[in-house]
Amino acid sequence: MRTVFFVSDQTGVTAETMGHSLLTQFDGSQYRFVTMPFVATPAKALEVVAQINAVAQDSGVRPIIFATLVEDHIRAVVQRANALFLDFFAAFLGPLEAELGMPSAHASGRAHGMADLTAYTTRINATNFALANDDGVGSRDYDTADLVLIGVSRSGKTPTCLYLALQYGVFAANYPLTDEDLDGPDLPAVLVPYRAKLFGLTISPERLQQIRQERRPNSRYSSAPQVQYEVRAALSLFGRAGIPYLDTTECSIEEIASRILDRQRIERRVRI
Amino acid sequence: MRTVFFVSDQTGVTAETMGHSLLTQFDGSQYRFVTMPFVATPAKALEVVAQINAVAQDSGVRPIIFATLVEDHIRAVVQRANALFLDFFAAFLGPLEAELGMPSAHASGRAHGMADLTAYTTRINATNFALANDDGVGSRDYDTADLVLIGVSRSGKTPTCLYLALQYGVFAANYPLTDEDLDGPDLPAVLVPYRAKLFGLTISPERLQQIRQERRPNSRYSSAPQVQYEVRAALSLFGRAGIPYLDTTECSIEEIASRILDRQRIERRVRI
Repeated sequence: MRTVFFVSDQTGVTAETMGHSLLTQFDGSQYRFVTMPFVATPAKALEVVAQINAVAQDSGVRPIIFATLVEDHIRAVVQRANALFLDFFAAFLGPLEAELGMPSAHASGRAHGMADLTAYTTRINATNFALANDDGVGSRDYDTADLVLIGVSRSGKTPTCLYLALQYGVFAANYPLTDEDLDGPDLPAVLVPYRAKLFGLTISPERLQQIRQERRPNSRYSSAPQVQYEVRAALSLFGRAGIPYLDTTECSIEEIASRILDRQRIERRVRI
Repeated sequence: MRTVFFVSDQTGVTAETMGHSLLTQFDGSQYRFVTMPFVATPAKALEVVAQINAVAQDSGVRPIIFATLVEDHIRAVVQRANALFLDFFAAFLGPLEAELGMPSAHASGRAHGMADLTAYTTRINATNFALANDDGVGSRDYDTADLVLIGVSRSGKTPTCLYLALQYGVFAANYPLTDEDLDGPDLPAVLVPYRAKLFGLTISPERLQQIRQERRPNSRYSSAPQVQYEVRAALSLFGRAGIPYLDTTECSIEEIASRILDRQRIERRVRI
């Protein structure tokens, strides 16, 4: 099996994201993944090279390195490993320097650092907001919300709100539709003043039942009739009330988040 | 001001991460950021080009495009915009095809999609675990935990646990150290059996006071003596009990997460 290394002088998040996106373009291969963050000294870089070379030798397959190494002298060391070496800064800093008409800092510790205290605080505050306004209990501070997600239990509301908070600093509340809400002629009264902020999540009954079975096996909550009733009634409510919605069955969390921001034209407050 | 576009046939998360990392290498410039996700048809690509060209003309400064466009014919359209065009797939797919000895799919919808249902479920389960095991109340399912974060209130435990869950599928619980815990001779009894899973967070008293002031202004909770006492006592407890710890004062959430996984040698269960 081929080993893929994510080597970074910082957290490795960019290298992981980059490598993952690229490898999904190739079918059928199995990989072992290793993240090596905070490789910021020549000594650490030499250790990394030794580890990668050992894997190359033991496995008999040349590893792949996705790197985000901003300092030339560190990159030069890691590049000598017996592996395919793809470095993101090496590829793009040159054209950017030419366009911006200035040299880059070539200094690590700038991305994902504390460069922007405001951004950090925004993300934390948005996370606390999501937690306080989760599942319709506790606060219902929908005045402050950028968005209020509605849907039946386990349709993906909570993880989506938390992702929007952590990744983008977006203030997202969520409100679960109960049987009582679903049987009503219109939206629950508490939501009516916030109609423009509402967005619905739906999910296939089969998938929802599977998720609920994991949580409370063989209960009314996870029974086929109940799940089918809730999904159908929620869709009908979205239609009657004119609420835009998304089917989350085939979506990853970041895809749900991104599609909602796009459709509702909500500004990202920060970007990682 | 120069406008930076993140153009993607998917969510745009990779393009945003890539662009942000690169731009932090250049000092003193201000940018306006626009994310354009789900650009997956020639018609949508033409719209994007028109928007970018309008910005170029109105602002008098050539925009920058960070793109993740996997299909050649879509990329060819966007590339014609009046902007610096940096595409991540264009740069790296070639060398990867050569190394892997196979053509890439050149198909969008693979990264951040539902490619891996197991990964999705793991992230959701880890998020639910973090929520259920947050702040020492409710569940204390430390047997299942990969990690138990300890620290005083507002030292960064909850956002870190949620980030670890959403980004990496890691099961992280957290336990807040109260005055009672801090005055004790050893770890709180409930934590003793899980000593190997414990990791401490600390923070500068000044920063902590600032954060607490936002939450409960002019309270004992946010007073200088109380904050100083708690931080000092927590550090002393970490020392006595031999608990590894990290100062979060200058760290972003992803940096805290990444440093903990690195130090504790915890495996990432998934990677976005």
